[in-house]
Amino acid sequence: MPTMRDFSTDHRWLSINTATVRKQRGVDWPLLDILDACAERGIRAVSPWRDQVASAGLRATAARLRAHGQVLSGYCRGGMFTYSDEAGRQAARDDNRRALDEACELAAPCLVLVVGGLPGALAGQAAHRDIAGAREQVAQGVAELLADARERSMPLAIEPLHPMYAAERACINTLEQALDLCDTLDPQSDGAIGVAVDAYHVWWDPKLQQQIERAGRTKRLLALHVCDWLTPTTDLLNDRGMMGDGVIDLPRLRGWMEAQGYAGFSEVEIFSHRWWALSGAEVLDTCVDRHRRCV
Amino acid sequence: MPTMRDFSTDHRWLSINTATVRKQRGVDWPLLDILDACAERGIRAVSPWRDQVASAGLRATAARLRAHGQVLSGYCRGGMFTYSDEAGRQAARDDNRRALDEACELAAPCLVLVVGGLPGALAGQAAHRDIAGAREQVAQGVAELLADARERSMPLAIEPLHPMYAAERACINTLEQALDLCDTLDPQSDGAIGVAVDAYHVWWDPKLQQQIERAGRTKRLLALHVCDWLTPTTDLLNDRGMMGDGVIDLPRLRGWMEAQGYAGFSEVEIFSHRWWALSGAEVLDTCVDRHRRCV
Repeated sequence: MPTMRDFSTDHRWLSINTATVRKQRGVDWPLLDILDACAERGIRAVSPWRDQVASAGLRATAARLRAHGQVLSGYCRGGMFTYSDEAGRQAARDDNRRALDEACELAAPCLVLVVGGLPGALAGQAAHRDIAGAREQVAQGVAELLADARERSMPLAIEPLHPMYAAERACINTLEQALDLCDTLDPQSDGAIGVAVDAYHVWWDPKLQQQIERAGRTKRLLALHVCDWLTPTTDLLNDRGMMGDGVIDLPRLRGWMEAQGYAGFSEVEIFSHRWWALSGAEVLDTCVDRHRRCV
Repeated sequence: MPTMRDFSTDHRWLSINTATVRKQRGVDWPLLDILDACAERGIRAVSPWRDQVASAGLRATAARLRAHGQVLSGYCRGGMFTYSDEAGRQAARDDNRRALDEACELAAPCLVLVVGGLPGALAGQAAHRDIAGAREQVAQGVAELLADARERSMPLAIEPLHPMYAAERACINTLEQALDLCDTLDPQSDGAIGVAVDAYHVWWDPKLQQQIERAGRTKRLLALHVCDWLTPTTDLLNDRGMMGDGVIDLPRLRGWMEAQGYAGFSEVEIFSHRWWALSGAEVLDTCVDRHRRCV
């Protein structure tokens, strides 16, 4: 294995997913202020969410990023391809095209895709129980979006989500499954589609190393997201841990990625009532510290 | 596909995992009373937990089962093979041998194995982050127990647990992974080891049908557990749903099992604060009803 990058002496490869600090102590933290706070700390990359960008304004966001010399590690997010009627399908398609355009405007390296689960499940009432059918809709939706993405030269990054989100958020649940879809849609692997590897979602997978190696061979490793898995985990969505506080061997995972040529950012994405209860400054300072010591 | 068994007109293939009614409205329901209540409803199979058997007495339990003409669909449970020191390893080995002896005394068709996660994680403090190492301990532990199990002609049923339990309860998390281990330890597939397929743990798996077919070819389908996945799920452990209340396509899963020759019980195993808050009679009546309509 080639020598891993040394993260201990600086944080040039740290990116902040802005959901990590989107609402601190009950108050929305405006995206432009988050960018400023990151810049003050020498954090040179972020991954913003679309609703945050919409609130701040797309052009204002792009301008602020340029002013700070900041780049994106990804754009969050497209996807949600599953539907229960034709109107839902069309709405998803239109929305994903807008997401692509925004990603281009912000010069993102990729549009991250959370593909959707059983239609209606996120609202508490699934329209059906046919997860295989939902997966077919996802394959079709990604295929359609891929044509648009190729026109814009904007890579798509499928993010497999933890199986506990299969019903409500994403029915692509393993790296193997995501790569199978990539290989089907893009057999030449020309850079148009790949995967976002989020430690929280994939750390448990007995085939993780094998599939990272597969993804490396086909040049599909587009992003690395980090946080940690806490024991106990008290909430399925919003109890993710700060790096170092849980059981994920993050350096090992990063080593597997880097052995396959991954040389991009390590993007911190933490959904956590605990961390949202602190000041944004404290959270960002902790991210910098843990990035150096635990990733 | 061969015609599935018709569950709608009787419940001869219903089994109750006794954790489903172990504590109703805050009061432990004694195992012998559970057996009586099942017998009153024509429920002819159960899967009791070791702590419940210990409280009721092993011989008393066996006698009551015989008196009712009831059989086991499995015995819950052996496993927890991972350890952080030699004393822990020895304790696990001894305890698993006792579990085997109890399973024999109760004439169980198999001893179900929940293999363990990272040592210490269930108590909140994992001894390490090496899940690959934990999996090696599991393979070694199952191999040792298999020798004892063969002597007693007691089949072992590895139960892959949902990936959200990888840290604390079981680092075998997919049917494929469980079957890989079975094939390694028992390449001839002589009936000594197989799998317990629990809908809750595996329903999300994109390779589920494929791996059930594989398990059928090698005669490893030893048990079927059912409940349902709720949306939302509010607790990682104790918010499992009654069949029909969630998003799992149980008839499809059972169909895949039966197409491979599975002709055993459908064992209801529900950990749920909601159902534990009702009377045991109401829960059992609901299990009978849903078994007929939703499985």
